[in-house]
Amino acid sequence: MSTSAPDSVDETAGIESEVADICRRARAASRRLALVSDRQRSDALLRIARRVRSDAATLAHANAVDVEAGRSAGLSGALLDRLTLTPERIEAMAAGIDVVAALPDPLDGAIAEWTTVRGLEISQVRIPLGVVGVIYESRPNVTADVAALCLKSGNAALLKGGKEAIHSNSAIADLLSAEICAAGLPPDSVQLLRSTDRRATKALLRQDATIDVIIPRGGPGLVRAIAEHSRVPVIRHYEGICHTYVDAGADLAMASDIAFNAKVQRPGVCNAMENLLVHADVARPFLEMLAPRLREAGVELRGCERSCAIVPGMRAASDEDWRTEYLDLILSIKVVDSLDEAILFVNDYGSGHSDAIVTRSRENAERFLREVDSATVYENASTRFTDGFEFGFGAEVGISTNRIHARGPMGLRELTTYKYVVRGQGHVR
Amino acid sequence: MSTSAPDSVDETAGIESEVADICRRARAASRRLALVSDRQRSDALLRIARRVRSDAATLAHANAVDVEAGRSAGLSGALLDRLTLTPERIEAMAAGIDVVAALPDPLDGAIAEWTTVRGLEISQVRIPLGVVGVIYESRPNVTADVAALCLKSGNAALLKGGKEAIHSNSAIADLLSAEICAAGLPPDSVQLLRSTDRRATKALLRQDATIDVIIPRGGPGLVRAIAEHSRVPVIRHYEGICHTYVDAGADLAMASDIAFNAKVQRPGVCNAMENLLVHADVARPFLEMLAPRLREAGVELRGCERSCAIVPGMRAASDEDWRTEYLDLILSIKVVDSLDEAILFVNDYGSGHSDAIVTRSRENAERFLREVDSATVYENASTRFTDGFEFGFGAEVGISTNRIHARGPMGLRELTTYKYVVRGQGHVR
Repeated sequence: MSTSAPDSVDETAGIESEVADICRRARAASRRLALVSDRQRSDALLRIARRVRSDAATLAHANAVDVEAGRSAGLSGALLDRLTLTPERIEAMAAGIDVVAALPDPLDGAIAEWTTVRGLEISQVRIPLGVVGVIYESRPNVTADVAALCLKSGNAALLKGGKEAIHSNSAIADLLSAEICAAGLPPDSVQLLRSTDRRATKALLRQDATIDVIIPRGGPGLVRAIAEHSRVPVIRHYEGICHTYVDAGADLAMASDIAFNAKVQRPGVCNAMENLLVHADVARPFLEMLAPRLREAGVELRGCERSCAIVPGMRAASDEDWRTEYLDLILSIKVVDSLDEAILFVNDYGSGHSDAIVTRSRENAERFLREVDSATVYENASTRFTDGFEFGFGAEVGISTNRIHARGPMGLRELTTYKYVVRGQGHVR
Repeated sequence: MSTSAPDSVDETAGIESEVADICRRARAASRRLALVSDRQRSDALLRIARRVRSDAATLAHANAVDVEAGRSAGLSGALLDRLTLTPERIEAMAAGIDVVAALPDPLDGAIAEWTTVRGLEISQVRIPLGVVGVIYESRPNVTADVAALCLKSGNAALLKGGKEAIHSNSAIADLLSAEICAAGLPPDSVQLLRSTDRRATKALLRQDATIDVIIPRGGPGLVRAIAEHSRVPVIRHYEGICHTYVDAGADLAMASDIAFNAKVQRPGVCNAMENLLVHADVARPFLEMLAPRLREAGVELRGCERSCAIVPGMRAASDEDWRTEYLDLILSIKVVDSLDEAILFVNDYGSGHSDAIVTRSRENAERFLREVDSATVYENASTRFTDGFEFGFGAEVGISTNRIHARGPMGLRELTTYKYVVRGQGHVR
């Protein structure tokens, strides 16, 4: 046995007990926070937003330390960009908190109320989930964003950011704590795990007695690793392998606009299209209209045998291509013989995120909307609309690929659960 | 290396691939089943109920094999009783299926519908969860019960019963399959895992690509083991450590009836009371009224120092006692000085299942109902009402101690999720 083993065991135990202690404090804070009025929660958010603005220089300074360290460590340009807090991004952070503060109280109103045959009065009332753990990667603005969403919905938040953003996240967390205290909310309402040790994350995932849900915000690799190891329920966000199906008899100009938008407007996001299906009856005129437009926008096209016969110079799409979320200007195209084939393909190769049909047939639209088993299904619209803001939720906690609890775009309501309040007059069984 | 290792590895791989295949078939069946009308699902259930009645002798015969094997294996009397299908229990099974068939369609009606600022029409519609895995212990009637609840809600069911009930469960599953086919539903809508190998259960818990939720039905040991190892989301049902708090100024006769009912009417169930809290102002008259009544019913009383001073002959309750779900005629009693102390105690020692206050004060009732963080909270009623049937759900899938997805008694609605159906007229971002 190595001589360092006992030390390392002690160290692990130390990290575990520290994390357990933080979680217990979060649980206690969550009980008090659940009883605070919406007014008080929103006032705290407005204080925080003001402080973000007044402390912009402090935040920028802390962030510069991270960016400098990232540069030395050889982080890619894209990662450095995500890590950087410009004055505009700091203002956007503050403005985002103001918006959340102004949203309606997600805890307001009973879900249902009824009287049982024995005369018990039951109300099903909304309450916060309790303690929400959020594990995220490099972008430090997530710290403020998630804290605001949790506070507004009455949840205590436990935040674990990436180690490359530790100075930025700590500066934001300090500011949050100060204003949370000043507003009279429980001081442990938002806590940042400052340990960047991976054992801290592992310990967090085992605290199912004190954490109610874990929301990972990051790529599929992060989400899968967390879902694999977590004892705490996880709201997952896996890939978006989104389809657009152009039906026989579709308005081809409309279909071209929708497909172009779904692929090109912002290719790096989960609701962008990865696979295009087109009915054989319209494949030639449609692809002859769309393919040059996509290529002009820099999209690399791959295709099935039949679409390759229509569009010259396309690379053949492999089975792997149909199952890949490129998040890039790459599109795989397939010609299908029927609506049935399209639906089967989407259910088989898609990821259940967002899928669209473009059609003039009400009947075909209804079949697609009903039979495609995805969180969001579209008739004659771009898949790019799968988004909490576009849906009108006023905020977006994430987009869930879970089937339980929350599915699709999550707003503040999806950070709540319920309890049953039962009133009797001496009722016994 | 042992010579049997390669064999055993092959065998494990065989079990894993068999389970994966069963799960894939369940997923395919779930897609078709989700499109079947309530009428067709209910008709299938009525057929199944008729067949349970007409095949009662076959079921009893298969069951006798299990009971005989259990007797030889030395199963306890209680376990043998749970395993046994009497004619009355077979009739109750059929009657239960008839009741589920007659319930309203849990998939009916949109949850919400709205038009976004950009003019997209959004409907949030109910759909089945998809594939529900149920893992349970000895009672074979669970096989029919769970299959009926899943079918009625449009879910494909994967059932894994205990090995001691394998002949009974197989006979019930054969009958289910035959009638499901005859009714024109997908044949794989309900599948029983016939392998009693524990590796089959382990393999099942890893199928997160094809199973949407696992519901364990059994003791806390089973539930914990499953929650620990499952990659599939689990709806948990842990202990019910339920409290009754008798407030100062409560109607003591009412309080005595409620406490007696909560403890004695059916002590072996999760919504029975385990801990009794009583305000110091009424502790003496109340305990002098209740203690003899409980003892006469055979209840063993344990208490804090102050309650021991009032009720002679009580054993002192340990910290362990307050945290134990006895499911038996044992009650721990504590005198508290305030409503605050009672609420803190319940939130600390309780399991968040069901807790009651008996009081004449509206204000104290509202504080208890609001501040006790349990799935069901009661004013002047017995905790024994936490039950899907008593709540009026018409069926009970289980009682969830999860905070996400479903909390408290689960009816058919809790076996559903939703999707967003979005209709546009060529909308792009």
